[in-house]
Amino acid sequence: MIDAKTKFAVVGLGVLGGSYVQALSKHGYAITGIDIDEETLVYAKEMGWITEGSTDPSVMRDADIVICCLYPHVFTEWIRENGKYLKPGCLLSDVTGVKQKIIGQINALLPDDVEFIACHPMAGRESRGIHYADSSRFENANFIIVPDENNTPSAVETARQLAEILGFRKITCLSAQEHDRMIGFLSQLTHVIAVSLMNASDNTHLKEYTGDSFRDLTRIASINEDMWPELFILNKENLIHEIQVFTDEMNAFAKLIEEEDVETMKQKMIISTQRRKQFDVKEEKK
Amino acid sequence: MIDAKTKFAVVGLGVLGGSYVQALSKHGYAITGIDIDEETLVYAKEMGWITEGSTDPSVMRDADIVICCLYPHVFTEWIRENGKYLKPGCLLSDVTGVKQKIIGQINALLPDDVEFIACHPMAGRESRGIHYADSSRFENANFIIVPDENNTPSAVETARQLAEILGFRKITCLSAQEHDRMIGFLSQLTHVIAVSLMNASDNTHLKEYTGDSFRDLTRIASINEDMWPELFILNKENLIHEIQVFTDEMNAFAKLIEEEDVETMKQKMIISTQRRKQFDVKEEKK
Repeated sequence: MIDAKTKFAVVGLGVLGGSYVQALSKHGYAITGIDIDEETLVYAKEMGWITEGSTDPSVMRDADIVICCLYPHVFTEWIRENGKYLKPGCLLSDVTGVKQKIIGQINALLPDDVEFIACHPMAGRESRGIHYADSSRFENANFIIVPDENNTPSAVETARQLAEILGFRKITCLSAQEHDRMIGFLSQLTHVIAVSLMNASDNTHLKEYTGDSFRDLTRIASINEDMWPELFILNKENLIHEIQVFTDEMNAFAKLIEEEDVETMKQKMIISTQRRKQFDVKEEKK
Repeated sequence: MIDAKTKFAVVGLGVLGGSYVQALSKHGYAITGIDIDEETLVYAKEMGWITEGSTDPSVMRDADIVICCLYPHVFTEWIRENGKYLKPGCLLSDVTGVKQKIIGQINALLPDDVEFIACHPMAGRESRGIHYADSSRFENANFIIVPDENNTPSAVETARQLAEILGFRKITCLSAQEHDRMIGFLSQLTHVIAVSLMNASDNTHLKEYTGDSFRDLTRIASINEDMWPELFILNKENLIHEIQVFTDEMNAFAKLIEEEDVETMKQKMIISTQRRKQFDVKEEKK
């Protein structure tokens, strides 16, 4: 469990890792920041978000809780090289957006006396770097803890405590399988839709005619190209399945238009209106 | 041209027709409202938006400008039955969301001494009925005039004047072909995407995990099922083509994921980010 003496190390002070140290620092913990970029460390120190900063991974050897805020493949590579510096008995966590494969990869690399508890703070942003860090975003975002069968109840409880300290109010547990299916539909499929809509043809000459609905639908076409392809590949079975189901539905709809089947189109629109209403409930409660 | 003595008739006082009479009434014109619903007429009269109201189409026989704010098939049926009441020399306009077929259908029904100038105020809302009328929405919306080869320059100029009186600031002319292609991509394809995403599978149990991006993308899944199937059918060639191009792109993207082709995915994301930025420009200028 986390107490006043708990020592943290946060690895990778980008927009998300930066927000983590910002939130943690408000509570007075000892926080070691690790990043490959010296200037990032200087900035974090100046802001009072870390108590010490280093480009040397071995500085994490005192930390009780180590949180890696890295792109997926960087995360596994980093643990492969530096896992030896993890203190026996420490707890490792992460922020990776896909879970089944990562949990397997990381556990295979860890010594027996280090426990990994997978977490996904759904508070990503397209902007990059510590200068965009803003932990106030955590308040309305979901924090998902993804325990596997090897996790201790104490590690799950510590992850929950961490989420609360960071400022998250919506904290849930999902299995890795449930998590990856959910992300495949809600997040990954929708990003593929927005990217494909922009790539299908160059319609930027139509920009003067666009209204709010087109802008809303395509906002996520602005996408971090260094991170998302990796996440898609790590969840490829779920995502390819979702794309297939969705394009089948689109093509079935095209057939209804071709056949001028007004009644079936109406039924689909009534269903979509009803289902979309359910997603509104939460929005109003905010 | 429109002057202080111009007499208007607006047919169909729904959310759009209601907003039309609301905006016109601010300028002191004589406005006859025609609707099948007595209560709607009473409401419009009470609000001071019309000078007289009737369920009888023949009351439009004095009007210099008649604007039909009706669903497409109701519009053509209404003109077929009541076109005989249009005053010789009067100008007829509309608000229909698809143009090529409507222009042909209406012109075939009109007497030679009545000119039809097609217009599309892109200010629709899912809410229905005069109680949702709100002409302040016109200010940031597009008003598109869609002249065909038979229109007189004077009719085009009158349509532009009408748009200005209604409060539109973005007024453009497009050919019916250009208009319907633009609408097929920007509006109709995006609505089919949102409806299909909601119909592909029932994922409402995931509502607690949704963030802003999913909500933004699916907002237009709430859709008026009495109007859109008609509009889709009237523009079926363009819309089916757009669906095909889009689903081909989605399936090609699925193949990139399957083949773990990170580089091509990155290129597509860079393109989508760049193109989406262009749609932002207008937004910031608002």
